[in-house]
Amino acid sequence: MAGKGFDFSRLHAFDSTLRDGAQGEGISFSVQDKLGIARALDELGVDFIEAGNPGSNAKDLEFFRVAKHLRLNTAKLVAFGSTRRKETRAADDANVRSLLLADTDFVAIFGKSWDFHVTEILKASLEENLAMIRDTVEFLVSEGKTVIYDAEHFFDGYAENPEYAMASLRAAADGGASSLVLCDTNGGAPLEAFGSLSSLVLSEFGVPVGIHCHNDTGLAVAGSLLAVDAGATQVQGTLLGFGERTGNANLSSIIANLELKRGLRCIPEGRIASLTRLCRTVAEISNIPLDDGMPFVGSHAFAHKAGMHIDAVTKNSRSCEHIPPESVGNERTFLMSEVAGRTMVLERLRRFDPAVGKDSPIAAKVVSVMKERELEGFQYEGADASFELLVRKNIGKYRPFFGLGYFKIIAEQARDPDSPRAFAQIKISVEGEEHISAAEGDGPVHALDGALRDALVRFYPAVARIRLTDYKVRVLDSGSGTAAKVRVLIESTDGEEIWSTVGVSTDLIESSWMALVDSFEYRLLRDAESRVIG
Amino acid sequence: MAGKGFDFSRLHAFDSTLRDGAQGEGISFSVQDKLGIARALDELGVDFIEAGNPGSNAKDLEFFRVAKHLRLNTAKLVAFGSTRRKETRAADDANVRSLLLADTDFVAIFGKSWDFHVTEILKASLEENLAMIRDTVEFLVSEGKTVIYDAEHFFDGYAENPEYAMASLRAAADGGASSLVLCDTNGGAPLEAFGSLSSLVLSEFGVPVGIHCHNDTGLAVAGSLLAVDAGATQVQGTLLGFGERTGNANLSSIIANLELKRGLRCIPEGRIASLTRLCRTVAEISNIPLDDGMPFVGSHAFAHKAGMHIDAVTKNSRSCEHIPPESVGNERTFLMSEVAGRTMVLERLRRFDPAVGKDSPIAAKVVSVMKERELEGFQYEGADASFELLVRKNIGKYRPFFGLGYFKIIAEQARDPDSPRAFAQIKISVEGEEHISAAEGDGPVHALDGALRDALVRFYPAVARIRLTDYKVRVLDSGSGTAAKVRVLIESTDGEEIWSTVGVSTDLIESSWMALVDSFEYRLLRDAESRVIG
Repeated sequence: MAGKGFDFSRLHAFDSTLRDGAQGEGISFSVQDKLGIARALDELGVDFIEAGNPGSNAKDLEFFRVAKHLRLNTAKLVAFGSTRRKETRAADDANVRSLLLADTDFVAIFGKSWDFHVTEILKASLEENLAMIRDTVEFLVSEGKTVIYDAEHFFDGYAENPEYAMASLRAAADGGASSLVLCDTNGGAPLEAFGSLSSLVLSEFGVPVGIHCHNDTGLAVAGSLLAVDAGATQVQGTLLGFGERTGNANLSSIIANLELKRGLRCIPEGRIASLTRLCRTVAEISNIPLDDGMPFVGSHAFAHKAGMHIDAVTKNSRSCEHIPPESVGNERTFLMSEVAGRTMVLERLRRFDPAVGKDSPIAAKVVSVMKERELEGFQYEGADASFELLVRKNIGKYRPFFGLGYFKIIAEQARDPDSPRAFAQIKISVEGEEHISAAEGDGPVHALDGALRDALVRFYPAVARIRLTDYKVRVLDSGSGTAAKVRVLIESTDGEEIWSTVGVSTDLIESSWMALVDSFEYRLLRDAESRVIG
Repeated sequence: MAGKGFDFSRLHAFDSTLRDGAQGEGISFSVQDKLGIARALDELGVDFIEAGNPGSNAKDLEFFRVAKHLRLNTAKLVAFGSTRRKETRAADDANVRSLLLADTDFVAIFGKSWDFHVTEILKASLEENLAMIRDTVEFLVSEGKTVIYDAEHFFDGYAENPEYAMASLRAAADGGASSLVLCDTNGGAPLEAFGSLSSLVLSEFGVPVGIHCHNDTGLAVAGSLLAVDAGATQVQGTLLGFGERTGNANLSSIIANLELKRGLRCIPEGRIASLTRLCRTVAEISNIPLDDGMPFVGSHAFAHKAGMHIDAVTKNSRSCEHIPPESVGNERTFLMSEVAGRTMVLERLRRFDPAVGKDSPIAAKVVSVMKERELEGFQYEGADASFELLVRKNIGKYRPFFGLGYFKIIAEQARDPDSPRAFAQIKISVEGEEHISAAEGDGPVHALDGALRDALVRFYPAVARIRLTDYKVRVLDSGSGTAAKVRVLIESTDGEEIWSTVGVSTDLIESSWMALVDSFEYRLLRDAESRVIG
């Protein structure tokens, strides 16, 4: 039986982005999203990924089915569910049985530790609740599962009826739970309770203890660290703090604190340097903009404003930075200064002319064009290929591959669900030769994309190999309603390289057109250059 | 001399939104903004408002001039500046003198406690730095000011050279400082230091101690509370956590924790109930959207999404809320979602039929339709009006307000930047009467929106009052490139009510159409009903 070997008394990270995080406002993961996030968490090196409740959600069950084919390295998937209902047998309880369908080695079961919840919400007797906990854990253990027991409302329960709260843990321990997780479900426990109760429970039962905090009082990270100081070894949270209300404990902050501030290991050696990148990946997949001010991983976490701080940090970074930004894979930025822009532009210019100096007028010109475009809403951080084209256009290292005669798009309501909704016609010219082509599509951009491809491929067969792998739309000034500015980011591949392009306009078709044209031109430029070199 | 009487050994709040908060990215206060924020902070009842550095900023000096006419009740304004430069006399130092121009009773002076900063950044001798601190405080006290001393980098300094860090505080105390504020300027001090050093400093000097934390490790609120537990009485922060990098300690979280969790008083009795409103006022003036998930005051701080939680909170709010939302002037909300389940649907159904029971087949049907739609990518938690229409359609409480004959959209590349890019034509029928209208727009959706409005308004004049206030687009399966599914969320208002609608399709035009139609229908339905009732 795999999983049996896991040592719960070693400090480890347990991520619940896919389960508790999915409760967060604005979050709605597709099965594909969940697979992508699981891969990122595995790359970071968390030990457990709580991935959903197969009993309450068909999509979660589908995820577990597909996820079996993920080749995860460090992470183990965990199915989550509740104790059996009252007056049933665990073996007959539909929700408990559905946990078996997830086919994971590890299962997390939550049960009630607060007497008030048992009698007022569950409407069960206190004895029955203890039996529900013990039976459920016992049944799952008998089915070969390793059971992590989540003591819901443990801190509130202990405050009102400590004997009963402890009895509920006793029931889980007796049932064979491998870990007792103390949950501050309502997020309002006093700071001093996290450490004291963690050490109390550990000494009372000798079973490894976990901690699960919510951020209702802004203390979730602190509470988690205090629990670890007191002996808790499973630290639960969601990578970016996603979760109901004010969110769960931010696991990226906790991991960085444990590893870099306390010198403790909770993910494999060396992985902490990928923290920022993986946090941004998870934010991107979740389509939740990562808070610029998020500790450790936000884009402003190491941003300095002009003046004294920049002066000091330039003299000695330790003077104004609590850790080196690169230790979490983040970087130092200078706000309100051209220093950051210039460094990036210089680095790019040197690909074309290694001798370009820091004070070159060309660098200054490109920086100023870039700043202008960024004011318009362009963002080159995620659009490397468009940035390269921008640089080339400003240093005379660019030639267009085709001219646009016109494009026209007709869109209408679909007659039936399967008929096309949009039709595009396009005329382009390449070295004097003109060509008109047309395509239909699911929507106007899809049709335009098809028509442009069809026109280009007869001149540049390499276009046939270009595939769009990602298409993102962000409304920049959503308050302007349907006249708002939209930014389109496109990721493309030819099977070897991956590149990203950007377009901005008040017209989605126009933004998409810009990003599409950049994508094709970037690839064709590569071809043209390798031909010259070859 | 006013201000002399202030008792620094009583617990009190010190807000630096207007000074340290102004360092935050994206923040730029006008003098009017600062006056508005000062009024809000005074209404909340903080004791000190640090309002700027008159020596480094002409706008700050202007603020102090104008602010004299503010009739603040509890709050005292504080001017902020640094110790004198090396090799000058405090009385001759331009920055120190400018503090006098602010004409406040209270002045905050920051000086260096970290030997490394003195020798490496300031390039002064350790002795000279101590003299700079003592002289400056002494001079300002001799000018009748009450001086709050900010020990910059105190925690880092103490960790490396405790004797020197303490000597710097001794210099401030000897100079006559009324309060010694321990600053974790780089935001990376270990959690355990906040309490231990606060009590050490308090016992060493007998001068009241303050705490000033930054949130670089996500521990600023916790650190502040631990310092208060250990005897610090001045708790510094910025109301919404504004500040450089990851921000300053969030003072709204600190105040709510102190008042409601620890039973301590740091603002006048009764004021805590205005916390949410005043936080939103400050966010509004600052033009920074208040984080939905901000502890205590965010719009989702008491939002419930999981079905079970909603069920429990309905039975007894204490079961799932750590404090009553109204204690901080916030309110409970229920978010719609696939997990929210039956309770939410029931609550909605009961608006139409109060007798609907928990096991009603209609509730089951609506839940199942909702789950289906959510699998397709619809998300009702941010689209209340679409949800209401969905419910109505499934219980026969819906009638369409118009029929669509067709719409056709033509889009093309703009001939010049100002010419329209899209043209829409639409035919609708209302009770047998047909009407065709057309419009042009920045993009296809903008044109379609215009044409539909124009067609509807002749039948339903109320449509003229509907404005779109928010338009959001999310690509759901961005990996499908331009054929990806897109979800559109629209927020509309008629100047009184605000409502939200959703549409999902592989065609952005179609998704937008769905959300638009829902928006108009929802509003017309309201009209029709009030007419029936009236």
